[in-house]
Amino acid sequence: MATLKKVAGMLTIYGDSTSGNCLKVKWTAERLAIPYTWIDVNIMNGESRTPDFLAMNPAGQVPTAVLDDGRALAQSNAIICYLAEGSPLIPADAYQRARMLEWMFWEQYSHEPYVAVARFQMMHLGKPLAEIEPRIIERGKAALAQMEAALSDRDFLVDGALTLADIALVAYTRMAADGGFALGDYPAVETWVERIEAALPIRDPR
Amino acid sequence: MATLKKVAGMLTIYGDSTSGNCLKVKWTAERLAIPYTWIDVNIMNGESRTPDFLAMNPAGQVPTAVLDDGRALAQSNAIICYLAEGSPLIPADAYQRARMLEWMFWEQYSHEPYVAVARFQMMHLGKPLAEIEPRIIERGKAALAQMEAALSDRDFLVDGALTLADIALVAYTRMAADGGFALGDYPAVETWVERIEAALPIRDPR
Repeated sequence: MATLKKVAGMLTIYGDSTSGNCLKVKWTAERLAIPYTWIDVNIMNGESRTPDFLAMNPAGQVPTAVLDDGRALAQSNAIICYLAEGSPLIPADAYQRARMLEWMFWEQYSHEPYVAVARFQMMHLGKPLAEIEPRIIERGKAALAQMEAALSDRDFLVDGALTLADIALVAYTRMAADGGFALGDYPAVETWVERIEAALPIRDPR
Repeated sequence: MATLKKVAGMLTIYGDSTSGNCLKVKWTAERLAIPYTWIDVNIMNGESRTPDFLAMNPAGQVPTAVLDDGRALAQSNAIICYLAEGSPLIPADAYQRARMLEWMFWEQYSHEPYVAVARFQMMHLGKPLAEIEPRIIERGKAALAQMEAALSDRDFLVDGALTLADIALVAYTRMAADGGFALGDYPAVETWVERIEAALPIRDPR
């Protein structure tokens, strides 16, 4: 990480460009045409555990955003909710807005800890697929199957339009193959990934 | 579970009264004086996996709420966001609202999977403390330590007032002893638990 200094008056995203959680914030800013500075943080060599970093985010996690007024905010899904307030990425209807949050909380509890963790263990810890804990694989498949059922009759997760739920879920779903999951087994999910990548648009490599 | 029928026109909460996630919804409804029907669901004997239940919530999880108009909503934190819209439990300021969500997403990712899971394994699976995976205990302690640091200089997690962040976090924190965590090691957290229990108020046994 080159520096912990932010550009005054501009959103700063501290992130790792291989992390789906970090990319969610980047894509949301880009979709909403919010200018930002991206500062790469390598969590594998302790850059998110320095005193300067922990002062911004005591959890020592990326992404961490520093807003244009200098205040910090953590948790990818909380950051994108903040950035997208008042935009079409959040449904105007209260029930649909709650359904969006339902998917986003579900993502952090029932999807990311399996689909993203399998990928992390294979890519960053060098574990072969056969050594990933079977419970992680099973629950990752269950999460993808639940998305497949939901997407069988609709183009977007909520309310017929692109919302933060799609951004939150596409982040690790599009890279599921890195964790040993075959997206081809979930054709509605695979088509949805392509739809969301085109809609945002996403140019980052899978 | 006596029945899956809801009372027409009234919020129905399908829940397990020993589950902190379910109690969050009950406390929020009571705090806001929203009438509700509570239907006990025993997840240990498959009651959340019946076809009727899965039609409401394909994830087969409690709590599941059926709103007064008959629409279902899952994920405790999404349900309480819906119920509390426009109330003082959600800060009016956009940044403080995002901080509230930051704590709520953190709760589901960095607190519940350790503090609540240790309790579940001891209470429901009958594991002795010595057999709980050390990683679960370590991360649960780290979560409580992070709350201790945050609460050392404030009465509530966000913005000087009771918000959904306090409700979400108090749910399993107040029962941390059931998972082998000593709340006495976190005095600011212990005092905060008593404060939130008194403020809501919470009458459910710990």
